[in-house]
Amino acid sequence: MFVRGVVRLLCKINKHENQKRNAGTLAFIGIGNMGSRMANNLVKKGETVRVFDLTPANAKSVPGAQVCNNQEEAVKDASVIITMLPNGDIVKDTVLGTNGILKHASKGSLLIDCSTIQPQVAQEVSKATYSAGFKFLDAPVSGGVTGAEAGTLTFMVGGDKQVLNSADPILMKMGANVLHCGDSGAGQIAKLCNNLILAITMIGTCEGMNLGIKMGLDPKTLASIINVSTGRSWSSQTYNPVPGLIEKIPPSNDYKGGFAVNLVAKDLGLAEGVALLCNAPVPLTAAAHQIYRALSCNGYGNKDFASVYQFLKGN
Amino acid sequence: MFVRGVVRLLCKINKHENQKRNAGTLAFIGIGNMGSRMANNLVKKGETVRVFDLTPANAKSVPGAQVCNNQEEAVKDASVIITMLPNGDIVKDTVLGTNGILKHASKGSLLIDCSTIQPQVAQEVSKATYSAGFKFLDAPVSGGVTGAEAGTLTFMVGGDKQVLNSADPILMKMGANVLHCGDSGAGQIAKLCNNLILAITMIGTCEGMNLGIKMGLDPKTLASIINVSTGRSWSSQTYNPVPGLIEKIPPSNDYKGGFAVNLVAKDLGLAEGVALLCNAPVPLTAAAHQIYRALSCNGYGNKDFASVYQFLKGN
Repeated sequence: MFVRGVVRLLCKINKHENQKRNAGTLAFIGIGNMGSRMANNLVKKGETVRVFDLTPANAKSVPGAQVCNNQEEAVKDASVIITMLPNGDIVKDTVLGTNGILKHASKGSLLIDCSTIQPQVAQEVSKATYSAGFKFLDAPVSGGVTGAEAGTLTFMVGGDKQVLNSADPILMKMGANVLHCGDSGAGQIAKLCNNLILAITMIGTCEGMNLGIKMGLDPKTLASIINVSTGRSWSSQTYNPVPGLIEKIPPSNDYKGGFAVNLVAKDLGLAEGVALLCNAPVPLTAAAHQIYRALSCNGYGNKDFASVYQFLKGN
Repeated sequence: MFVRGVVRLLCKINKHENQKRNAGTLAFIGIGNMGSRMANNLVKKGETVRVFDLTPANAKSVPGAQVCNNQEEAVKDASVIITMLPNGDIVKDTVLGTNGILKHASKGSLLIDCSTIQPQVAQEVSKATYSAGFKFLDAPVSGGVTGAEAGTLTFMVGGDKQVLNSADPILMKMGANVLHCGDSGAGQIAKLCNNLILAITMIGTCEGMNLGIKMGLDPKTLASIINVSTGRSWSSQTYNPVPGLIEKIPPSNDYKGGFAVNLVAKDLGLAEGVALLCNAPVPLTAAAHQIYRALSCNGYGNKDFASVYQFLKGN
């Protein structure tokens, strides 16, 4: 009886929370490959969403969302404003610019920037946003287009913990994990650190798999040995770069989709910039960066980053 | 009734196998850091073991083993001869040299080389060994001194599968996994491929952890984020290079013990040699090799390889 009562109470609270959340309007700025899928999940899960993108056709790609003709229209009266943009300069301009979000949004509303940008830009935008009477979280994502589509993104969040608690129900409609990394900018730092490790590990896995296969080892045998040994990683276990070893991932689909070489290169450039700031040597990050840049120059820019395997293997 | 019968039959077979195995004498050549611990496990698990090392004091470090004054004495009449030596030249000399194993051992006996050497040397020694009427397996190990001590090594084995089946009970007295990698030399190739991935991934993990911590992230928080994200690996999860994050591993003990920088550098040099043979580009392997060489020149040679973190962090 007591348990039933508690369950009922929890249901009531949840319902109330949802109603409260659904009462506000969300604005989503930046409807690209990631943004369109993230906004779509918000709509599907009951949120009222207004969308805006500089390219009008993009904005129309979210069924059920209210397409806005300009940023002002999108952010007006919105309780939460989410941005998913290509780089730090665009984020600064979109938020702080002469016709930026801070000029048109309601005081007290929350801005969540999901773009991957320089941590120091996230900190600068956060500071300006709070000074103008708003709240701000940097919340870059991990999981790529597939994760955005499936609503299984990981959000790495920097900013006030209580503000994050209030945003958690929204983020969880687009993702499966919300990780608080620390103060403002910490989400960006955590993401860059994770991604530089990923980028390096993927190349290492490609080098080892390519060398072993060229020397006559069976690819499946080699992968199974690595996966029970000290060379194992996310790259070798769930995203093995050799075509055909794991089904339904980009390496088994001609490296289409996934995490584009150009985006990995962008993240590595950002990581190197941060490393200069704090005097942290990043020798393999720098080497990995140049390898992905070389791939990009050789037609691999829009291929999945595991295509380093194809590049090393040659024809 | 049927099940009990099968169990009894299996017990009988096992007993018979063990008796058959314990009937022969094992020779163990090369009683260094690894060899002494491996031979010790063989003795503890009931094998009759004769040991020989060029340094007499080393040979005396295995309680219960019969210490031999020369190689001839050790290998004479031994059914299985195990070698654990520093490099390919020494393996060649020990097996094929003018006073080598093939000169003194009984025809038909099995040589198992557990050293990490060039795959092509393993193939050459294998060929010469079979021509002289012996059997040969290359069986380099993963797991280091800790694994050798605990008897939990992984053996990566190249050579005839049936020969391996006959050797399996002996190897399992020193290790927890015996992986058949393919024909002669394949054990060496698999080990080098695994180790180059490990060496690269460890440096990547060190770069990411150092950068994040220098930028103000909490080490535990950063590690926990990476371990549920795409940067996760054996290095980040079970051997995190940051002191104090994981207990009872070399990074938490001033990088003492573990996988020495000098040995990682040796393996990377071997991997680069193999890569030249088969025209496989290994850009990050080469960079990682030079980083470990630089560590070695700076007094880190005998430290655990995770000390790259300390090197990047500086004082």
